[in-house]
Amino acid sequence: MGRKTADRRYAVWLSDPSFAAAEIARGIGYGAVVLDIEHGAFDLADLERFIPFARALGMEVLAKVLGPERGPIQQALDFGADAVVVPHVENAAHAKAVTAFAKFPPLGDRSFAGGRTTGYGGFTDEWVREQDTRTRCLPMIEDAGAIEEIAEILALDTVDGVFVGPSDLSLRRERGAYARTDGDFADLARIAEAAAAAGKPWVLPAWSQAEKEFAARHGADQLALIMQHGALAAGFAAPFEQMAAIDAEVRP
Amino acid sequence: MGRKTADRRYAVWLSDPSFAAAEIARGIGYGAVVLDIEHGAFDLADLERFIPFARALGMEVLAKVLGPERGPIQQALDFGADAVVVPHVENAAHAKAVTAFAKFPPLGDRSFAGGRTTGYGGFTDEWVREQDTRTRCLPMIEDAGAIEEIAEILALDTVDGVFVGPSDLSLRRERGAYARTDGDFADLARIAEAAAAAGKPWVLPAWSQAEKEFAARHGADQLALIMQHGALAAGFAAPFEQMAAIDAEVRP
Amino acid sequence: MGRKTADRRYAVWLSDPSFAAAEIARGIGYGAVVLDIEHGAFDLADLERFIPFARALGMEVLAKVLGPERGPIQQALDFGADAVVVPHVENAAHAKAVTAFAKFPPLGDRSFAGGRTTGYGGFTDEWVREQDTRTRCLPMIEDAGAIEEIAEILALDTVDGVFVGPSDLSLRRERGAYARTDGDFADLARIAEAAAAAGKPWVLPAWSQAEKEFAARHGADQLALIMQHGALAAGFAAPFEQMAAIDAEVRP
Amino acid sequence: MGRKTADRRYAVWLSDPSFAAAEIARGIGYGAVVLDIEHGAFDLADLERFIPFARALGMEVLAKVLGPERGPIQQALDFGADAVVVPHVENAAHAKAVTAFAKFPPLGDRSFAGGRTTGYGGFTDEWVREQDTRTRCLPMIEDAGAIEEIAEILALDTVDGVFVGPSDLSLRRERGAYARTDGDFADLARIAEAAAAAGKPWVLPAWSQAEKEFAARHGADQLALIMQHGALAAGFAAPFEQMAAIDAEVRP
Amino acid sequence: MGRKTADRRYAVWLSDPSFAAAEIARGIGYGAVVLDIEHGAFDLADLERFIPFARALGMEVLAKVLGPERGPIQQALDFGADAVVVPHVENAAHAKAVTAFAKFPPLGDRSFAGGRTTGYGGFTDEWVREQDTRTRCLPMIEDAGAIEEIAEILALDTVDGVFVGPSDLSLRRERGAYARTDGDFADLARIAEAAAAAGKPWVLPAWSQAEKEFAARHGADQLALIMQHGALAAGFAAPFEQMAAIDAEVRP
Amino acid sequence: MGRKTADRRYAVWLSDPSFAAAEIARGIGYGAVVLDIEHGAFDLADLERFIPFARALGMEVLAKVLGPERGPIQQALDFGADAVVVPHVENAAHAKAVTAFAKFPPLGDRSFAGGRTTGYGGFTDEWVREQDTRTRCLPMIEDAGAIEEIAEILALDTVDGVFVGPSDLSLRRERGAYARTDGDFADLARIAEAAAAAGKPWVLPAWSQAEKEFAARHGADQLALIMQHGALAAGFAAPFEQMAAIDAEVRP
Repeated sequence: MGRKTADRRYAVWLSDPSFAAAEIARGIGYGAVVLDIEHGAFDLADLERFIPFARALGMEVLAKVLGPERGPIQQALDFGADAVVVPHVENAAHAKAVTAFAKFPPLGDRSFAGGRTTGYGGFTDEWVREQDTRTRCLPMIEDAGAIEEIAEILALDTVDGVFVGPSDLSLRRERGAYARTDGDFADLARIAEAAAAAGKPWVLPAWSQAEKEFAARHGADQLALIMQHGALAAGFAAPFEQMAAIDAEVRP
Repeated sequence: MGRKTADRRYAVWLSDPSFAAAEIARGIGYGAVVLDIEHGAFDLADLERFIPFARALGMEVLAKVLGPERGPIQQALDFGADAVVVPHVENAAHAKAVTAFAKFPPLGDRSFAGGRTTGYGGFTDEWVREQDTRTRCLPMIEDAGAIEEIAEILALDTVDGVFVGPSDLSLRRERGAYARTDGDFADLARIAEAAAAAGKPWVLPAWSQAEKEFAARHGADQLALIMQHGALAAGFAAPFEQMAAIDAEVRP
Repeated sequence: MGRKTADRRYAVWLSDPSFAAAEIARGIGYGAVVLDIEHGAFDLADLERFIPFARALGMEVLAKVLGPERGPIQQALDFGADAVVVPHVENAAHAKAVTAFAKFPPLGDRSFAGGRTTGYGGFTDEWVREQDTRTRCLPMIEDAGAIEEIAEILALDTVDGVFVGPSDLSLRRERGAYARTDGDFADLARIAEAAAAAGKPWVLPAWSQAEKEFAARHGADQLALIMQHGALAAGFAAPFEQMAAIDAEVRP
Repeated sequence: MGRKTADRRYAVWLSDPSFAAAEIARGIGYGAVVLDIEHGAFDLADLERFIPFARALGMEVLAKVLGPERGPIQQALDFGADAVVVPHVENAAHAKAVTAFAKFPPLGDRSFAGGRTTGYGGFTDEWVREQDTRTRCLPMIEDAGAIEEIAEILALDTVDGVFVGPSDLSLRRERGAYARTDGDFADLARIAEAAAAAGKPWVLPAWSQAEKEFAARHGADQLALIMQHGALAAGFAAPFEQMAAIDAEVRP
Repeated sequence: MGRKTADRRYAVWLSDPSFAAAEIARGIGYGAVVLDIEHGAFDLADLERFIPFARALGMEVLAKVLGPERGPIQQALDFGADAVVVPHVENAAHAKAVTAFAKFPPLGDRSFAGGRTTGYGGFTDEWVREQDTRTRCLPMIEDAGAIEEIAEILALDTVDGVFVGPSDLSLRRERGAYARTDGDFADLARIAEAAAAAGKPWVLPAWSQAEKEFAARHGADQLALIMQHGALAAGFAAPFEQMAAIDAEVRP
Repeated sequence: MGRKTADRRYAVWLSDPSFAAAEIARGIGYGAVVLDIEHGAFDLADLERFIPFARALGMEVLAKVLGPERGPIQQALDFGADAVVVPHVENAAHAKAVTAFAKFPPLGDRSFAGGRTTGYGGFTDEWVREQDTRTRCLPMIEDAGAIEEIAEILALDTVDGVFVGPSDLSLRRERGAYARTDGDFADLARIAEAAAAAGKPWVLPAWSQAEKEFAARHGADQLALIMQHGALAAGFAAPFEQMAAIDAEVRP
């Protein structure tokens, strides 16, 4: 483990704080994890342990927080996340309000805590600048209002890039369940172009070959390539089919 | 265990995710559990395990969530709850806003997650319809504004029924601590009638004989018959009194 | 809570580290808890918290440990238990070997740890004496060999009394499943007499009226009156039957 | 432990629910704990156990909750906290809205739960009054708007005192990182005077000698004297330096 | 999920108590889980929840316990396991001693606990017989002495079959790290023949095609087809390679 | 954090798996942790996370296991510990038997597990040699029999050094509670000399100045300089005394 270089562009999408999952991903060469705190099972004490562990392995931690609220954003940053991914940002005004929780005054409205991020000591103005610069705030583009105002969102100085939520975007743009249609890719292209214009990164969960190629061609900064549970399902299915074939032949 | 048929009308009210409590209730014949996430001690990782367990035992899971907010409502449904019970709904407009988190667009504004509910895979329009139909959203009637606008609340297409909170309702209707007065039963009757008129179910915590009879007569769809801790207290008290009587006689 | 005096003679039998269960028991007047670590679900971090909590409520903690081994005995004492109950003691020689883990040298072979029991500091010879005196070691009488050699067991200076295991004793004395037969009570009488002769206490789980009366008449020092899960089952069953009767009448 | 009298004026500031930390603090003479739920790692099941434990040791529990919202405020009180400390109160109107969650109707809008606080039973009007009186609600003064309207905040009948957040106050009052400047002490004096004028207590985290002296002179009701992790760092550093000096001499 | 019939012959090998892993495996058609309690991370409270959950999903639970000792064997059975797999059985005499902990007297020496297995009530002689018959005890054949005395081991009436540990067997039979050599398969054949001769089942972890075919041809009763972490590794590696290929072409 | 070089000679002694404690220690310059699994509160899932975390911070992990048994020794090594410290080794024969669990056949009798240590894959003969060489097995010298036979113990090829337990050694050598007497230091000298003669390292918990100097002069390989709870107590006590002095002057 750890022999391979970690590529920060490639992330796994985790639904629970499995230390083994992080180690396995790191061993393969993944250099980032997306924590789906919104839909997964990450309690506070788990996050407090998992985030510094993944970072100590040399991986970036993108924390997709519980909601567009102060508490979850602050906690992920307090526990040491490299980036907070903020779901359900409705529009530019909403983005301005909620991304403020990721940056300290006067830039934003994050609350100070003397803990992991300060080396368990006090703080200085220089530390404030360093934190605001080093950690990233990535609002999600998954609401209809957010994609309409994406330029304004990207222009905010509390915003360091955007993270796409294709499934919710499809539902909210009246295309129904996400089926990787032309309409979906048109939205992705719009987001990629807005990010390029703003000179800020964009990030995509890209389960399929088509999404992966699109992301490569359109310069996505980071990609989640696979979900933890999807990977497990694929890994469990193959030997089952292998054995079923053997038994069909040997002991039908 | 499991020999008795489970009666989905009868629920126990749980304050913590005790697997034994679910098994014991199921063994007696209870067919539903109400999880008091609002006031109890249910962390996310516990909910993620308890909800599918209770369902695998053949019980309906009614998750009384932390508050009338997106995060807690979504999580309970993501983890597989049959119904979300939404506390502190203030009035019809508030109900419209917050019950939307329990249904997918275009009906509501629930966020999609590929996990337990999709069999750990992707989704289709049909799955969306099935989820929106099969899972129930039950706003609580425990605020003064909510009972005043109960008809409008029940008319919402994101609302599948109502769940009564008699203690808070008594406090907020200026009757003080809940004492099962005529005023309380008048409120219950009003709720039962509104539900009947709307053709939607209503659910009641019914600790006393009087409440149980009222619920039976007024066609409550489901009832919580006993609280976990109240049951334990009753079960601990009886042998204590038995022994105290013996000792009073044998070794006074 | 806490208004009633706690009676140390009466214990509840716990299968998991529920803080509410301890508080409820204490509120009723119970002054002791038996932790069934052998068959229940008590992890180390749970024990480390539950034991001092029950003691802070004013209850004695009798820890029925995982087995007749050094590790489990030491841990329960390190975490602050008042007594260790040692299951599956086979005979006097075995009792001598394993109860030694509950007392420091030169009396026994317990290992020293500077933690809760020392106020998180160092120790003195006086502290050693105080610990060895204050904490109790109660081997269980549940094996055929143990009841045969009960006098020798009670004579050991590492033994402070005995704790009866009627179910296992019945199985191992070839009476099959425990059915509160004359043979069972004869064994109980033999134990009570041996304890009286040795001037040391004996403790009994006493679920039935007959066992409770026997214990009172034969001077048991402490009794477990009810199991946590049995209490819950009784508490859940009563309102179910009440409601079933109502429904049978009101909506048959 | 417990031999020393507990002084409720002196608190330790905890970032995780360590039972040993509470016992150690109590052994030294501390009579209160501040739980930094906002920035620390306190899950619900941990809070449910830690709060009654600290209280059973004879310490006051001041729960600095996750945010100025109904859920976290109610839970801390449901689990038995003596006081809720409410962060990020923006101004008097905001204070009025959010401190209401700490008091029952008609005074406020807290929701009733039959659990620990009721002895696991029902409730009465008298119990409501007792709860509202005995438990304290302390909004934090750490936002610029809050210090501007401190008199109005202290005048609210749902407010029992204030709790100062000097680090955030410095950032939000445009003094940058907290450096214990004259401006900082001027703010502290303003808060102390407003509290004195209102006849309500004020509480301060006071890490430095200067802050401790200020608090003593200005009659702070309670003080957090040290953070758990800061204490650990000091305790780890001293022997390291001692040994480094020895090794520099003995085996350079 | 659950639509497919569960095939009890096929098991996944789990290293932690992931509920999602159980559901995913069940969805694919697996009908059994092997819990590697010996080398994995299964605490008691986790086991107490995971075992009944997997069973409620319709899967058999084979608990490979911590060691050949009373405590771990009893706990797995108390929590409801279908089978205990006992590692590091050294020879027939050792097998006789330790498999006794899996059966009640007079057959063996298991200790009784009134909990999940009794429906949280008491017990009868009939229940004892049913437990002893329904639950299986499978000593592992992974020590040199055990394979030498396999016939005697299989002849014990406390033994219901055997479970092979090929890696340890290779090390202990002086073949070094397990490399699926002829010597390894000769041992497997010897075990399969002994089991057939005894009329008792044998179980094999079968990661490779060769082992799977061998098991099918030699009538293994159950097979663990894949390890949880191996499945995850395979599932994580495929998209990584896919993306690396895309990036090599698109943005080299 | 991490700016300072970690010095592997200096360790903190931990009683619970606090991630913050590890980070704080590492920030000061400590390069090792001793986990007191024997007397502390380390559950399996905690160990599985804490061990790789401390190692990822660049610290050596010395796991003082639950007892001189196969299970606890194997688990610590499976989870990635650098060294296992084996308590209560009675003499050379006992040492030979139990240290075997730390080395694979043919050297010893450790059981193989494909997990963290193999990068979650299979294994080779080379890996076996590497594991047996890289991980260390340190029996404790704390029993009277062990110090008598220390040369024989150190001569075992399954033993990589020794770890002193001064408190138990004092009790078992009939010197009563450990008081850092001449007899104690004579024992330490005897151990240091035996280790030097064998060319193997020795490790000491060294709380006092005298023990630290002794260790430096006698070439101890590693030292535990402070206990986690002792550090916390010192860190809590100082500000309490500071404040008490202020209050004695300011508001007596």
